[in-house]
Formats: sequence, C-alpha cells, structure tokens
Amino acid sequence: MVKLKIPDHQVAGHQAKTGIIGPLIDDSGKFYKPLQDDERGSNELAFYTSLYSDPRIPSNILKFFPSFHGTEVVDASDGSGLHPHLVLEDIVSNCTNPSVADIKIGSRTWHPQSSEDYIRKCLQKDRETSSIKLGFRISGLRSMGPTNQLWQPHRKVLMDLSAEDAMLILRKFVSSDGNVDEPDCVFASRVFGPLLEELLELKKWFEVQTIFHFCSCSVLVVYDKEEIEEKKSARAVVKLIDFAHVVDAKGAIDHNFLGGLCSLIKFVKDILAGLSDVQTSNPKP
Amino acid sequence: MVKLKIPDHQVAGHQAKTGIIGPLIDDSGKFYKPLQDDERGSNELAFYTSLYSDPRIPSNILKFFPSFHGTEVVDASDGSGLHPHLVLEDIVSNCTNPSVADIKIGSRTWHPQSSEDYIRKCLQKDRETSSIKLGFRISGLRSMGPTNQLWQPHRKVLMDLSAEDAMLILRKFVSSDGNVDEPDCVFASRVFGPLLEELLELKKWFEVQTIFHFCSCSVLVVYDKEEIEEKKSARAVVKLIDFAHVVDAKGAIDHNFLGGLCSLIKFVKDILAGLSDVQTSNPKP
Repeated sequence: MVKLKIPDHQVAGHQAKTGIIGPLIDDSGKFYKPLQDDERGSNELAFYTSLYSDPRIPSNILKFFPSFHGTEVVDASDGSGLHPHLVLEDIVSNCTNPSVADIKIGSRTWHPQSSEDYIRKCLQKDRETSSIKLGFRISGLRSMGPTNQLWQPHRKVLMDLSAEDAMLILRKFVSSDGNVDEPDCVFASRVFGPLLEELLELKKWFEVQTIFHFCSCSVLVVYDKEEIEEKKSARAVVKLIDFAHVVDAKGAIDHNFLGGLCSLIKFVKDILAGLSDVQTSNPKP
Repeated sequence: MVKLKIPDHQVAGHQAKTGIIGPLIDDSGKFYKPLQDDERGSNELAFYTSLYSDPRIPSNILKFFPSFHGTEVVDASDGSGLHPHLVLEDIVSNCTNPSVADIKIGSRTWHPQSSEDYIRKCLQKDRETSSIKLGFRISGLRSMGPTNQLWQPHRKVLMDLSAEDAMLILRKFVSSDGNVDEPDCVFASRVFGPLLEELLELKKWFEVQTIFHFCSCSVLVVYDKEEIEEKKSARAVVKLIDFAHVVDAKGAIDHNFLGGLCSLIKFVKDILAGLSDVQTSNPKP
C-alpha cells in the first residue's frame, strides 16, 4: 500500500491534525479526501464521477476542477482503520512553500432540500461570518514568504470580516510579508492579474449554466512566492473545491454563487486598480 | 385638496382595496404611497430624499427610479383621516390598459441588521416562494389584452414557481392573451428586447456599486399592448420600486440583488432566443 502522510499546507476544512479523520497526500501529487459517511460523501462522489464525462461542461471550465482518480480504501489519518477516500489532485503538490487562500463563495451555504437542523447551523455561520455581508468568506489562508516567514491568520480573525478587513487580508496575501500593517502588494499583479482573468471566465459560465448549484463550494487560490519571483511563466492556480453540497440547478442559474463571485471579482479589481494608482502617483525615477 | 382615488392597476404590495391603508393616485400622474409608521417609512423617505442629490448615482441609473415629489399629508384610503404619504411618479399613468409585472429581486429579502422576528418571517417567505430557487419572485402580474381581456394570476399561483413555471408566466405576460396554455409571445421582442437592454444596464451598475444594498426591492415592468401595436416608438417602462429595506452597502457590491438580476436576465434571454428558434424553424413564406 502506498505511503500516505498528513498535508502541511491545508488552510480549511476537516483537518487530520485535530484528531478527527482528515485528508492525506502521497508523493505522486494525489490528495486523499475521506468520504463522509452520510449523503455529503455520496453526493461529492457522484459529482466527481459524472463531472468529467458530462458533455454539458465546457472544456475551459473543466480545468477549474481538481482531477479525479476514483476512490481508494486506505488507512484513515486518525488510526481508526481502513476508510474509503476520494482520490483527487493535490493542488499544492508542485509548490515548495505554497501561499493558499480558501474562499467560500456565496452568501448562502445551504440549499432548500437541506434538513431544518442543517439550514439553521449554516444560516448562523453565514450570519456570523462575512458570507451574508460580502457574498463570500475567507475560510482559511496562509501566506509563505520567500525567506519562509509564514503568516496564517487564526480562523477567529477571519470570522467576521468587514469589506475593509477582507480587502486588507487579500492585500496581505499577495505581499512579501503578510504579518505587517502596510502590505507591499508586490505579488498582486502577478497573482491577482491572472486570478481576475480566471474569475471572469468562471463568471461568464455562471451567467448561463443551469446544471448545478454549488452550495458551500470554495475557490482555492495557490501560488508560490519563490517560483513567482524566479520564473516568468509561473502563475497562480485557481480551482473550485468541495462539492458535498452541489445540487441540481432545476433550470435556474446559480445566482447565489454568481453574486458572491462578482463580489470577490470587485475586491480583486479594486486591489489591482489600487496598484496602478500608486504607480501613477509615485512614478519611478 | 386634490381629489385622489384608489389605483386600478396595482399588482402587489399593500392595497387600499383590502380595507387597510393603501396607495392613492391623482389625475396628474402622481402616486401617493402611505408612509409606514415604523423605520420602513423613515428609511424609504430618507432614500428618496437623498437619491436625486447623490452625486454617486450615475444619471443613466437615476432613470430607473420613480421621480419623487416630497411628502404630503392627505386623507388615507381607508377613511381613517389624515396620513403622511410619499408623493411619487405614477408609473402606469400614461397607459390606458397597462400590463404590469412586479418582480422582487434577490434570494434574500432581509438584511443582517433586521430583527430576528423579521428575518424569520422573510426567510420563511423566501423559502415558500421562488426567491431562493430562482433568485427572484413574481410578486404580482397582470396582462391586459387589446380587447380588454384581463389575465391576473392569483398570488397563490405565483407563490412557489419552478423555473419552468416562471418561464411560462413570463411568456404569457408578453402574449396577446395570457389565459391560454400555449402563449403566442407576440409582444416578446417589443417588450423583452428593450427590457433586456435595461436590465443589462442595471447589471453593469450593480457589478460595481458599493453604495446601497437593495433588500426586498422590485423591478416593475409596464407596457400597454394597444400602444405597442400602434406606435413604433412605444416601449416598456422598467423601474425599481420599494426602498423600505435599502441599507448602506458597507463597501461590498449588492451580490444578492445582482445574482437575482442575472437570473432574471437569463430567463428574458432564453425567451428571446426561443423566438428566433421559432422564426428559424418556421420561416415566413
């Protein structure tokens, strides 16, 4: 059996480290996500199983999903024995020191078919976090500088962000050191320029797709500062993750995801516009 | 004092006819909306009072709001004596037999600052109607044919529409007779063509505006079938109405309204695309 280990760079979701069953990775770039016992597990498995053979999904959109390698029964991270796992692409496997942001899109993380109990829990979290105000929440984030200083704000810090807070955190995410009050945003154009292009491509699809409603799904943004500095061709990776709550669209676009996506796009655009303002007001000699 | 009467063509909102205090109109094209006693009234008055002098609202967007003529104390519709009213533009005053659709935009009609009781009530209604599924609900609709046949579906019929139901009702709205199973959509291109242009103009603004969040606000679509048939220049009127629950955007776009607006746009586009399909498959001799 292949040797698996607990990933170092996870920023959100169920984490193996906390004693409960969490994801694992191998050395070949695969990510083993424990299949949840309830309908969340079967739902996510069904989503991945049909996704890559669904002729309705355009190829330029398929690239936003992690590649899928079926399921495998492996030893669970908590030592509780064998457990079925989804085998997915490990999105950060090519990075030595990845900077990662997990941004849960949509002001509503539940869908109408959910149980009353689940709706109540989700609604409370959507209200306690920035989801209802901003249309998204930053579920987790880490920023690793070139000299290996790690900045990973605590979940509590990310909980109830105002627009101003979220803007500052996103600016810190693309700075040489996130742990400062005045972020330098030196990686902003290299990371948020391509990110904006990708989000706009997603937006175009979400304006017309009536296949899925992606409840509680995240946009994951990954980049490596060292690589970005060294290689011109290096760029941020943008993926959609977490499909346990994807439901049939029943003929309507996913207005909840689209609205949140447009809100995130506005933040990214404003950060990029802020850069050119600075460049204009402080021209280089 | 000017002579006021109860309007004939109202399709949603508090109606004078039902015994409670409702709006009135005069002969000069003004609409008198009773000021609600609580913060809803003061909120809507504050919105209208500042709107037309707010330099942040572009002039091409101001046209979507009914014109505002201050407040006036007039005899309430229910005979209970003098009551303050907002004096607004009567949007249907130029139509003899208006067809009217009141479409409440957004899957969430409450904002986070609302009381728990109000949130509970709104959430229940958002779940019982099509708001959460489609991102909008048709609050009321009337369609008046050229030979004066009125089709005005009961509120219960409009309550819990699927995407397919909503599509059919919107197609009936632009047909010569709404009261049939196979609507002819003869007014679709004349009404929904311009409507689409206006909705796209609004969308462009909602993608960037961080001034207001428009909770529980409607798009009102008004046209006159007879006029549309007779005059080439006649077009549908599109207005935003109901601002009792507009709140400060606090730095984020109104992702809730924008998502719902994009969903409505998709329906309108699909109806227009359906027309050209028919024209292509049934070419005129």
